[in-house]
Amino acid sequence: MKRAAPRRAPTESDVAELAGVSQSAVSRAFTPGASVAETTRMRILDAAQTLGYQPNLMARSLATSRSNIVALAISYLENPFYAQVVNALSDRLRATGRHILLFTSPPGEDADPALERVLSYQVDAIVMTATTASLELALQCQKSGVPIVQINRDSTLPGISTVRGENRRAGERIAAFLYAGGHRRYAFVGGAPDSTTGRARGAAFAGYLDARGAPPVVMTHGHYTFDGAAQAVRGMLSGPDRPDAIFCASDYMAFAAIGVARREFGLDVPGDISIVGFDDVPEAGRTAYDLTTYSQPASALVEEAIKIIDLLIEDPTRRAMRREVRGQLLVRGTARVPKDGIVVENDERVWRGAEAE
Amino acid sequence: MKRAAPRRAPTESDVAELAGVSQSAVSRAFTPGASVAETTRMRILDAAQTLGYQPNLMARSLATSRSNIVALAISYLENPFYAQVVNALSDRLRATGRHILLFTSPPGEDADPALERVLSYQVDAIVMTATTASLELALQCQKSGVPIVQINRDSTLPGISTVRGENRRAGERIAAFLYAGGHRRYAFVGGAPDSTTGRARGAAFAGYLDARGAPPVVMTHGHYTFDGAAQAVRGMLSGPDRPDAIFCASDYMAFAAIGVARREFGLDVPGDISIVGFDDVPEAGRTAYDLTTYSQPASALVEEAIKIIDLLIEDPTRRAMRREVRGQLLVRGTARVPKDGIVVENDERVWRGAEAE
Repeated sequence: MKRAAPRRAPTESDVAELAGVSQSAVSRAFTPGASVAETTRMRILDAAQTLGYQPNLMARSLATSRSNIVALAISYLENPFYAQVVNALSDRLRATGRHILLFTSPPGEDADPALERVLSYQVDAIVMTATTASLELALQCQKSGVPIVQINRDSTLPGISTVRGENRRAGERIAAFLYAGGHRRYAFVGGAPDSTTGRARGAAFAGYLDARGAPPVVMTHGHYTFDGAAQAVRGMLSGPDRPDAIFCASDYMAFAAIGVARREFGLDVPGDISIVGFDDVPEAGRTAYDLTTYSQPASALVEEAIKIIDLLIEDPTRRAMRREVRGQLLVRGTARVPKDGIVVENDERVWRGAEAE
Repeated sequence: MKRAAPRRAPTESDVAELAGVSQSAVSRAFTPGASVAETTRMRILDAAQTLGYQPNLMARSLATSRSNIVALAISYLENPFYAQVVNALSDRLRATGRHILLFTSPPGEDADPALERVLSYQVDAIVMTATTASLELALQCQKSGVPIVQINRDSTLPGISTVRGENRRAGERIAAFLYAGGHRRYAFVGGAPDSTTGRARGAAFAGYLDARGAPPVVMTHGHYTFDGAAQAVRGMLSGPDRPDAIFCASDYMAFAAIGVARREFGLDVPGDISIVGFDDVPEAGRTAYDLTTYSQPASALVEEAIKIIDLLIEDPTRRAMRREVRGQLLVRGTARVPKDGIVVENDERVWRGAEAE
């Protein structure tokens, strides 16, 4: 049996032939602002539709040296906070005709090695979240004038812009909140040991409590994973002198912590133990979780990141930028509440106590 | 103050000049398999490194008509099942040097309209999950020979391949399991009214129970969102004759259902009410949730989708394909357990009862 030849993608000249026009007329018809008679343009678009022709944006990107593609390097996508970041970034880029080329890496591993070759795709910028740029990538991007912005991770490398939540302030505010709530023994579940974000939150948390003479804070690593956090909490609740207040460096880890406390140890949250998260993912506000947490709005982080990208694309000689997005301590049902300092703002209970300290 | 000129991306001829070779030598040095003396190649790579030059893979894709980019259209990324699909797809594509161009759309809306122009990016294939192709896109892709595979959604359109879990069988097996567990009143929380997947699961579930003379199944829509499911369950638990067995068409909706039952109605799960999910996302197996569910392995779905893509790229004259990936009913802690039929396989309790029916 004779096999049909594979279909060939229709070309500009196929369209020109069918429409009875020159190839350059077809090219002009697909170039915004180029001159072509309206009746000719309609005939060309009809022919293109009939043939299934698509103007080649990749070829066009060679001419304009802009691909309208932004690379996104991400890890921990199972954490709903990062799903929010991806959604927000995709929405905002779509509004300006841009799209995401996605690079994922497994939790705790370095960024996708393919990212080192990402410049081959002529991306306009690189956004990294829950993962950090290598020195190699930073230098390559600096040479090529391609901006890199890290969301939720600091960097000491040259040319890397960063956008993050209030890590230090959040750590201190959560400590103050739990301290005012009269807890006895405090614990922190951080991310990976080398996460700058988790370290900043934990150091500020422990620093506040140390300065007030609280017993030493139990510092553990949950590696930003569900199982990592569950294991850390299991460990601290199995010991003799167990904490009655836990700050988890992400809501996702706090969900794991609450599950272990309630279902493996039969503890009442917040009766026996207070658990506070970080991020304020959408689920955190639902009755199923009702999580006391410090907010870090994904949409605001993304908005700042895109502002930085656009400034740096417009003027590649600008220096890397650093932005901090504000959040607040949202008082819900998983932590004992101090007597004072609760105010209601936009239908949320917010803790404003001890702010003068 | 004079502003520095924006940096220009280095070109092949810049590299040629610095390395003291011809431009075609530079081109060959970056083409796998092309002939160039090793010492020359090293000199060229050094020069490229110094200048921050990157070979332009987009330009190359014009020559080969393969971009090594697969478009992924997705919605409901906050559902951990789809985070799993993205991770699995990214991992598998990376292994063959391919990457994902991401198109997101908000829950319940049509796919990103930009997807209609996706062929402009010369993608090799389109994968759609939690969203469905328009007729327009299907026809365009058919004309251009670009395969479309839908994961977890059926299609009646021409040229669309589909990969899905055992929707009908799962619906029947869950019904049989709950029926054998001696429940009185059954409910179903589906996705959007027009989701083929949710409809298939619900119809099979209700069909099994109807055939056995059970009271009519309460059929509701949770729209595959956390809030949608919470609202549906809140509605059915507020009424006079409330169900004691709920099948939710996704684990994510089941988590919302369990939260509402326990925390808003003070019900014991599974003492007062049984709740069963669908997907078996990683969290479902953790003690925090311990969810009884029917599995639909994301990695197996992705593997089948990629097999189909590769077959269709190799031979565009092949017809669209349909694949079903098997799952099983995993017995955990959120549903009353029938007396018979539980077996242990790979450390999981699986229900094998009433299989001969």
